[in-house]
Amino acid sequence: MERLPSWRDSDARDAILRFVDRVTDPASPDFVSVEKRIAVFDNDGTLLAEQPIYIQTLYSIERLRDRLLAEPELAREQPFAGARDGDFAAISATGIPGHLRLFGEATAGMSFEELERDVRAWFKSARHPETGVMLSSLVYQPMLEVLSLLRQHQFQCWLITGSSVDFLRIFAPLLYDIPAERIAGSELTLSTRHGADALELVRGSECSLINDGPEKVISIMRHIGGRPIAAFGNSDGDVPMLEWVAAGNGPRLSMLIHHTDAVREWAYDRDSDIGRLSRGLDLDADGRFLRADMACDWARIFPA
Amino acid sequence: MERLPSWRDSDARDAILRFVDRVTDPASPDFVSVEKRIAVFDNDGTLLAEQPIYIQTLYSIERLRDRLLAEPELAREQPFAGARDGDFAAISATGIPGHLRLFGEATAGMSFEELERDVRAWFKSARHPETGVMLSSLVYQPMLEVLSLLRQHQFQCWLITGSSVDFLRIFAPLLYDIPAERIAGSELTLSTRHGADALELVRGSECSLINDGPEKVISIMRHIGGRPIAAFGNSDGDVPMLEWVAAGNGPRLSMLIHHTDAVREWAYDRDSDIGRLSRGLDLDADGRFLRADMACDWARIFPA
Repeated sequence: MERLPSWRDSDARDAILRFVDRVTDPASPDFVSVEKRIAVFDNDGTLLAEQPIYIQTLYSIERLRDRLLAEPELAREQPFAGARDGDFAAISATGIPGHLRLFGEATAGMSFEELERDVRAWFKSARHPETGVMLSSLVYQPMLEVLSLLRQHQFQCWLITGSSVDFLRIFAPLLYDIPAERIAGSELTLSTRHGADALELVRGSECSLINDGPEKVISIMRHIGGRPIAAFGNSDGDVPMLEWVAAGNGPRLSMLIHHTDAVREWAYDRDSDIGRLSRGLDLDADGRFLRADMACDWARIFPA
Repeated sequence: MERLPSWRDSDARDAILRFVDRVTDPASPDFVSVEKRIAVFDNDGTLLAEQPIYIQTLYSIERLRDRLLAEPELAREQPFAGARDGDFAAISATGIPGHLRLFGEATAGMSFEELERDVRAWFKSARHPETGVMLSSLVYQPMLEVLSLLRQHQFQCWLITGSSVDFLRIFAPLLYDIPAERIAGSELTLSTRHGADALELVRGSECSLINDGPEKVISIMRHIGGRPIAAFGNSDGDVPMLEWVAAGNGPRLSMLIHHTDAVREWAYDRDSDIGRLSRGLDLDADGRFLRADMACDWARIFPA
């Protein structure tokens, strides 16, 4: 069977296949033992479309809708005014902290079980605000094939996301077959209390960890406890993670997904508030990373 | 082959075997799918002897020895004065935060690689301060058998420790075959900087997370993302974790290891600064947990 069938014959595809062969062939001088085969993936914009706004934020807006109309106080500032008005640009100008404020306000006090039920029910019928397609169909087929290839070669695949880990843990097992314990993301405050007859976890609204930029490197060490040998990202927030992985000894794969396809997806980089890629492109000019050019390198973007 | 051979015929042994059968027999009404078979273990006093003081602290003292003599300022307060004088009681009176201060001071600035080399070299010859046996021989054979039994039944076994995760990640793979990514512990500050030609992680001396008591429950949610079905602990710091696991739906196993054997190990509970067990015994009186009585239930304590 052809490997990575949705990738066109390209340097990026060659580099992935060569890397996998080098580290998994027992006869290779660069052979890596199974327990060290760790790959990390950003989520939004790397495995899944993120334009015009993160799926987490579409959910947050939906869930805050009634409250924003009933409580004008709440909508007095950004990103809440933007959420009330459906002004994605205003929300995105507040950056990842703003997106997390919306999610925190939308879900504080919900138990993990309630959140899971609610998000799953919403996701079953949620559609993209511009194209109308099901959100669940916006995963990138070429990246599903990378995940699958790595897993066939006994890699541990981890998700290192700037979105809330509570939110991603609901999707990632369904969309990517990545289990809950292999996801590190941004975190809302979490506390415990003694309930009626048992200890309960209480989800707060404040963000206690913004998992972006250098924090992604720290998260990897906190959760995985070592340096991965492969990393995939698409924005400046992923660049420290890609740099750190690339700086390890032995064969490494650090790949930037570049959003270049305005026809089949969205074309954006230096000027976008969502998934800005500027420093990453500068570093890439030194040949420090591999780059997947979505328009050129991907024969297909979304699953059939 | 006999299961749990180092356990005497006892309620505790029966309870473990019955639990494993109930959740893993496909014909059982209480069958639990493989991905939900998660067990969590405290380390010190649950898998490994912790008297008269934690192994992490023996290492910290050893590493601080020269500095404490050269810098009298440092040893002016506890737990540093105790570290200089070998006064374990004075150190332990400062609680888990004090033990972590020693470890932070002893290892700040060391890279993860340096720490690993140094701890491994020390551990090869480190001996118990009272009995003189190798520290590595102080693991509990009956608990190694529990780990092994659970793994045979496709459980994920996690270590949830109040000691530093940086320290435990060096031992746990060797002693218990628990991989680095399945360990959550107390944390020192961690930051990133741009080094000569790459991003570097910098280990600080301050404690940013004390993984004890309710924090263990929060850590489990942060790292695992769901409620385990089995938990093993030995001190009041483990009780919230045991309560939370016990309060889940379906069959659950929450077990307290009770240090009752003054001849073969150490006997201590309500009055000990290390591994105090007081609230746990009160709750246990309600039958909320299972209890393993080391003197009665364990035929052997340490490996041959």
